[in-house]
Amino acid sequence: MSADNPVRERLVVIGGDAAGMSAASQARRLRGPDELEIVAFERGHFTSYSACGIPYWVGGQVGERDELIARTPEEHRARGIDLRMRTEVVEIDVAGRRVRARELDGGAESWTSYDKLVIATGARPVRPALPGIDAPGVHGVQTLDDGQALLDTLRATDGRRAVVVGAGYIGVEMAEALINRGYEVTVVNRGAEPMSTLDPDMGCLVHEAMAGLGITMVDDAEVTKVLTGDDGRVRAVATEDAEYPADVVVLGIGVRPETSLAKAAGLPLGAHGGLLTDLGMRVRGHEDVWAGGDCVEVLDLVSGSERHIALGTHANKHGQIIGSNVGGGYATFPGVVGTAVSKVCELEIARTGLREKDARRAGLQYVTVTIESTSRAGYYPGAAPMTVKMLAERRTGRLLGVQIVGREGAAKRVDVAAVALTAGMTVEQMTALDLGYAPPFSPVWDPVLVAARKAVAAVRAG
Amino acid sequence: MSADNPVRERLVVIGGDAAGMSAASQARRLRGPDELEIVAFERGHFTSYSACGIPYWVGGQVGERDELIARTPEEHRARGIDLRMRTEVVEIDVAGRRVRARELDGGAESWTSYDKLVIATGARPVRPALPGIDAPGVHGVQTLDDGQALLDTLRATDGRRAVVVGAGYIGVEMAEALINRGYEVTVVNRGAEPMSTLDPDMGCLVHEAMAGLGITMVDDAEVTKVLTGDDGRVRAVATEDAEYPADVVVLGIGVRPETSLAKAAGLPLGAHGGLLTDLGMRVRGHEDVWAGGDCVEVLDLVSGSERHIALGTHANKHGQIIGSNVGGGYATFPGVVGTAVSKVCELEIARTGLREKDARRAGLQYVTVTIESTSRAGYYPGAAPMTVKMLAERRTGRLLGVQIVGREGAAKRVDVAAVALTAGMTVEQMTALDLGYAPPFSPVWDPVLVAARKAVAAVRAG
Repeated sequence: MSADNPVRERLVVIGGDAAGMSAASQARRLRGPDELEIVAFERGHFTSYSACGIPYWVGGQVGERDELIARTPEEHRARGIDLRMRTEVVEIDVAGRRVRARELDGGAESWTSYDKLVIATGARPVRPALPGIDAPGVHGVQTLDDGQALLDTLRATDGRRAVVVGAGYIGVEMAEALINRGYEVTVVNRGAEPMSTLDPDMGCLVHEAMAGLGITMVDDAEVTKVLTGDDGRVRAVATEDAEYPADVVVLGIGVRPETSLAKAAGLPLGAHGGLLTDLGMRVRGHEDVWAGGDCVEVLDLVSGSERHIALGTHANKHGQIIGSNVGGGYATFPGVVGTAVSKVCELEIARTGLREKDARRAGLQYVTVTIESTSRAGYYPGAAPMTVKMLAERRTGRLLGVQIVGREGAAKRVDVAAVALTAGMTVEQMTALDLGYAPPFSPVWDPVLVAARKAVAAVRAG
Repeated sequence: MSADNPVRERLVVIGGDAAGMSAASQARRLRGPDELEIVAFERGHFTSYSACGIPYWVGGQVGERDELIARTPEEHRARGIDLRMRTEVVEIDVAGRRVRARELDGGAESWTSYDKLVIATGARPVRPALPGIDAPGVHGVQTLDDGQALLDTLRATDGRRAVVVGAGYIGVEMAEALINRGYEVTVVNRGAEPMSTLDPDMGCLVHEAMAGLGITMVDDAEVTKVLTGDDGRVRAVATEDAEYPADVVVLGIGVRPETSLAKAAGLPLGAHGGLLTDLGMRVRGHEDVWAGGDCVEVLDLVSGSERHIALGTHANKHGQIIGSNVGGGYATFPGVVGTAVSKVCELEIARTGLREKDARRAGLQYVTVTIESTSRAGYYPGAAPMTVKMLAERRTGRLLGVQIVGREGAAKRVDVAAVALTAGMTVEQMTALDLGYAPPFSPVWDPVLVAARKAVAAVRAG
């Protein structure tokens, strides 16, 4: 393939969603088709879509599936990317610099050589091997295809009872989606509280608020099987103690890095099963192989250790950085501080940095404070209550983490803490932050500053 | 006064609003009445109120004046503060460590000695000496008394036309208030665009949006006189070119530090007429005199020079810091980055850091970028457009300033830039910030990050 142009290289991309196609697009911006051939493989029907938007499509806030698609295969092809849809890479031959791909329709297989490789295979949802888990009416919500299948089920049945298994981001967002479609929703959750990405005392607030929205919250409950009716469809979800009738079941248990190909190829994986990269998103020890998105582990800047975080915003950044480096530019991904925001109806949930157990695991001693404040000046209409929990390192007072549960205006306040964590600020430095103040937007002391002031006192006392 | 307890000191506070009473309260927390006597003088009728809330009280969103009062004189007295209301300090004798105060009702005068003095005399509104400026129907909105007088006028007249003079924060907020009361509002503004705290290209967006709300915007217009009718009341505002009929006129031209007492006492004032303090809020060269709130100048951390910013959030911080230091603790106010947020109906306006002209004045060379984005994922209902302008230093890429004009969810995004400015981040560092992402809260690239990415390219090109 390089016969016509001896310096022309071939970039192969495995995975056609955020990380893979961002990498391909950015590489294409920097290097034209005469310099760089780009071949991308995607096993599904769609490219560059917002998986994070699926709950809102299912819930009806987003009308059409195609609104979630940022760029179609045709648009990518128009930019000079040789995109092979419904084609799954089944083997990476690192020594031979080639990948083996299978066309899902027809089964034909062939090898494609590469000069540079980007692995963006994403994540796969956890799907426990329970009796009945594959019954009609049980749905994951990882891909657009999954979302379409769930919507088809919701439209075809006149059931009114839904069980969501799992109470992390996907679980709580799907609970909202099903509430919005008029279902009676039960959330069955293995943990003591929903949102295990929060400390239990903050998760407890989420439990209360979700229960207040009419959602039946079942905590500390492990699903043991999915019960089916005479028609073979799901009819209930069983735990050790109880059965929860269900016309539809949504699995939102979490995801793991999809790295089976990488593992078989002998590429380095971390403790969470994700690919390990350097700061330029190069797979460690492999000069011409990059990886990004939900299949990699990322450096947590607060704890200094690797984590796996499946989030579209990281995947887009990774793709951008990989594409720059593949294209001859220079960019790095320094790491994350673990920011995440979510909502269930009017409830807003946010976190960044370390939970108490993360801090302990990292060998950090810390103080915690929790404060109540409001989103606007107390006298201004619509001022909504908000609880802010803050962790600071003992003695040094360095900010370690923030969690917020509240109503409108709560979630994005966590960004202030995300920047402060990145900058390594102490809570005392934070008390002087010049944050925007006007009565429609904040009390005279922003809730984050109220927490920081209390944290300063706790650091001094501790 | 120290006869009964030779170590007991007396703290005198001039001014009973945010800075003064925060200082008094914090000092009281640290030192009981047997150690520290606190005497505070306030010439008005109210203490510790939110002047920033006056537009919302006038506009009807806040029902009662008392909702704006955080702490009444009685509450302060119950905490052991000897509060003298309606008593104006008319002289500071620094050498003699005493102040002369006059009771406004009766006129009695007396000297009070101090060991420590806090000057928190606030700001006074600019009120040009124009013909007719004192006519009935012309109102400032600096104090609760001003707000009450304006409300009395609005209730007593059945006029429907209002002219607001000035298009800064107070002007635009009063325009909203009067719109909310059903007035036809004209804003007469000396500058080329409203909101001179923004660059003109961003002010232009505010002009368009306010005009779109039905507000008549008159820019580049200097008021020459206030015209009165046969009854002596205001009937119009005149500029060189035109007359604008008015049943009520609101002055929102800005404020200056109220430092006439300090000046007469020989205390150091800066170029903007505000008191100059050290980082502990001590008046420079005066061991036992502190000053804070709207009567001081503050260090701008981005330009390295002093500014005058009248804002409740700074006044509260100053008071807290002064009270800590007076009380034997230790706290400092490192400075500001110039963050401000405001709204006019649905329009949100925010800024932090330097405008182009501030950067030039500071001797900085810079690049600017402006981007359009949305408050939420584009497909999510309620996604509102937002324009973000970013300034970065040439070559180094250090963030210098951000301005945002948009709708719901626009203003408080400026806080991310405020923290980044405080931390001295470059725009390239900002592109990696781990900001909260979920479709109801942000596009996958937060608007601030979109601006940062474009600024990186501009720095490289520049």
